[in-house]
Amino acid sequence: MANYQALRLALALKAFPVALRAAKVPDLELPDDDVAAFNLAPADAIALLERWQDWLSAQTNGERGCWQQRVQQQRLEHLGLAAFFVQHDTLRVPRVLAPITAHYSWSKGMKLLGLGRAQLALLPQREMRIDIDALDAELQRCRDTQQPVLLAVGVFGTTEYGTIDAIDGLVAARDRHAATGLGFAVHVDAAWGGYLATIFRNEDGSLRSLATVRESFQSFPSPAVHAAVAALGQTDSITVDPHKLGYLPYGAGAFICRDQRAMALLSEEADYVFHGATPKDYLSRYRNLGQYIPEGSKSGAMAAAVYVTHKVLPLDHRQFGQLPRQTILNTEAFHLRALRFAHEVADNAHALVPFAPDSNLVCLALNPRGNRDIARMNAFVRALHDELRCDPTLPLQFKEFFGSMTTLRPDTLGAGETARILEALDIDPASLGAGEDRDRLVILRHTLMNPYLIDRENDISYIDRYFEFLTRRVRVHAAATS
Amino acid sequence: MANYQALRLALALKAFPVALRAAKVPDLELPDDDVAAFNLAPADAIALLERWQDWLSAQTNGERGCWQQRVQQQRLEHLGLAAFFVQHDTLRVPRVLAPITAHYSWSKGMKLLGLGRAQLALLPQREMRIDIDALDAELQRCRDTQQPVLLAVGVFGTTEYGTIDAIDGLVAARDRHAATGLGFAVHVDAAWGGYLATIFRNEDGSLRSLATVRESFQSFPSPAVHAAVAALGQTDSITVDPHKLGYLPYGAGAFICRDQRAMALLSEEADYVFHGATPKDYLSRYRNLGQYIPEGSKSGAMAAAVYVTHKVLPLDHRQFGQLPRQTILNTEAFHLRALRFAHEVADNAHALVPFAPDSNLVCLALNPRGNRDIARMNAFVRALHDELRCDPTLPLQFKEFFGSMTTLRPDTLGAGETARILEALDIDPASLGAGEDRDRLVILRHTLMNPYLIDRENDISYIDRYFEFLTRRVRVHAAATS
Repeated sequence: MANYQALRLALALKAFPVALRAAKVPDLELPDDDVAAFNLAPADAIALLERWQDWLSAQTNGERGCWQQRVQQQRLEHLGLAAFFVQHDTLRVPRVLAPITAHYSWSKGMKLLGLGRAQLALLPQREMRIDIDALDAELQRCRDTQQPVLLAVGVFGTTEYGTIDAIDGLVAARDRHAATGLGFAVHVDAAWGGYLATIFRNEDGSLRSLATVRESFQSFPSPAVHAAVAALGQTDSITVDPHKLGYLPYGAGAFICRDQRAMALLSEEADYVFHGATPKDYLSRYRNLGQYIPEGSKSGAMAAAVYVTHKVLPLDHRQFGQLPRQTILNTEAFHLRALRFAHEVADNAHALVPFAPDSNLVCLALNPRGNRDIARMNAFVRALHDELRCDPTLPLQFKEFFGSMTTLRPDTLGAGETARILEALDIDPASLGAGEDRDRLVILRHTLMNPYLIDRENDISYIDRYFEFLTRRVRVHAAATS
Repeated sequence: MANYQALRLALALKAFPVALRAAKVPDLELPDDDVAAFNLAPADAIALLERWQDWLSAQTNGERGCWQQRVQQQRLEHLGLAAFFVQHDTLRVPRVLAPITAHYSWSKGMKLLGLGRAQLALLPQREMRIDIDALDAELQRCRDTQQPVLLAVGVFGTTEYGTIDAIDGLVAARDRHAATGLGFAVHVDAAWGGYLATIFRNEDGSLRSLATVRESFQSFPSPAVHAAVAALGQTDSITVDPHKLGYLPYGAGAFICRDQRAMALLSEEADYVFHGATPKDYLSRYRNLGQYIPEGSKSGAMAAAVYVTHKVLPLDHRQFGQLPRQTILNTEAFHLRALRFAHEVADNAHALVPFAPDSNLVCLALNPRGNRDIARMNAFVRALHDELRCDPTLPLQFKEFFGSMTTLRPDTLGAGETARILEALDIDPASLGAGEDRDRLVILRHTLMNPYLIDRENDISYIDRYFEFLTRRVRVHAAATS
């Protein structure tokens, strides 16, 4: 839902300057033509919205309602997408650029909002992180073909691999292209990873330096991850899920926008009219939350729970940050142990961590030694996963460990990465194909949310125990496979 | 959210036959032109969808993927609204017809889905119930101007007045117009009133006759309400909120469609392809609920609570129906007592129940005797409401009774109804105008959800006590006003 909110906010803000032009509002320093109006940088569009609000509040009562109506009737939300683009025939429906691993909510959102799935451009990645060069080339192409861009989406912690996109690269691309007349917003889907930022924050909200953060860890964070966190505050909007790394139950989701003034454009009541004359304060404005979100009335209990949690454990490295910090420490231990495990099981299987973890999610690819066929490898990993997955027909205690699986698709990985991983696993690339379970690599996926994986008091490492368990099972299944 | 689901399901189903034509799928008995394809009755469009699924599953593996892709690329959801209507230039963006009191989610939904608020036609009402003649005239106009219609919306229990639209009239209009080539779906917004239907159901789900239902009540239900309930099963989709008359906490909402086969068109994965070859059963299909609803993963706890409640108290008149039955009995007592109250306070004020209650919601208009000014009347009712409303700064126990208020707007009421009500209240119509608190009538609103308002064991009627309280307060405020 937060991702849809990002889409509709960006669309409302993009189309509003065009509506002001169509309504022929005087004195606002409007852009010269529709193309310029539709391609304003978000900050410039918000400044224009504010000029309009100020202008409107300076009108007489009668005039104000009249102008409000006139602009309202030119807005994309009033006309609908079809009529808006017929009326403004120099404009094209804007595209959304997202990394190819982007959550399926982006595809759903494009369909739901009527923009069309065809307007979602999926960008290639490198090691499951957005390829900024490819983004730049796509933006260049958009500029050359007068193709407007609505949003560029970065993922801060993919749910499948935990990888973190170069948010700093997205922000820089936005600013660079805005200067050449191609304005668009940057949205960060931090549903999974948003709370990791608490590791990087001082109590006053300022950013901790790379060196300071590193003092707590072996190698985390990579300079790229630190730069991504540093850029979060310059993005236009962010999605965060408290029910993921916030450790809270389902029922609350966060849509955060850097400049909330644009939210007036989503209001069901035209409250933006009164902005200048009777400025409402932030809290009383959003108390009527149903005016601004797709939903109407809904339970506030979980939002209250999130609020209380953040009051008790503020979102800085000394408070809430201790929780993700511990899971990153576990991840580093897990990653090191996985490398040792790869060495230990080398006689029975090839084991590979396909991407260095950016956060607390570690994947593991496994292939029984001697096998070169992808379908057989996938069957092997699926058999291992069967022992790790939750079985709703059995008590939880029957399982020694729980783990999940995911898949890597060559079209998502790209040719170079696919070749690298297949080679490390000794899989024959020719066995990759269109057939049953041959179009992807099945891998184990470990989400290390539990901060208590290493019990120092009782000197138990559940990470060691997991890899001892996995070593035994790999040997059993490899013997069965060979 | 359920109302948005109705919109996007109806839109997907309306546009799909056009996509099949554009993809030139053979052997399907496709409509002759786009206009006919876009105006199929929902049942005919579903039959066509099924023919397509059967046809597709009869193709070879390679052909199947190819055809699937080809149709997919012609779908409105893929192209987006703008490109779809450019490619099919004989078609116009369809309208949604809803009563003027329809919930603001309809306006929000039109904007969210990109159809545009301008495509929402608000129909006049009579006594806050949809005017079927006006609907019919509007449909006629649509047919004459080749204006497609997406949905006709009826409200089963308005949240403001508890009134129930003639669902039978909507269904009849749908069938009548489908026969002349104007196909559209009927959706019922029963968010408030849906559970009232339990009063009308036998244990086997069949409808109880008007006479049988009436045996329990003084005058409920009106023949119109009984006919509306009887028609619910013939509508295309229905919204019901368990957190209203289901007496359950927030967190679950129901979107019900009569023929779930069309839901395949909302699926994020193109699961409809495999329909014929590997039919999935209903439950295993919808276990992947995130594929079909706007949201992704979400809490299922409240849905489970609804399920358990309906198992414990099945939705028939002998079980769950006892609860709404008691509230309707209270409503009848309340209504009678309100009429007596009007008589009792006649020296001090004009009191009027503006509409005979269809359900368990009774409104009361009040004007101090001698006053003919609408703003003064509104101030009088607001002062009464101040004593009835929840004050978050005080313990609940400080209030004797709780009640809410709502407003009646002349543009919603229509000229005739406005004149009738103003006359009964002795308000000068000339005092109605554009000024502060002069554009609407403020009235008290009583939502009688509590089944224990009449305590027979202890011989206490909280209804009597409320009207005794209200009589005292009316006298005090009328004296202050005069």
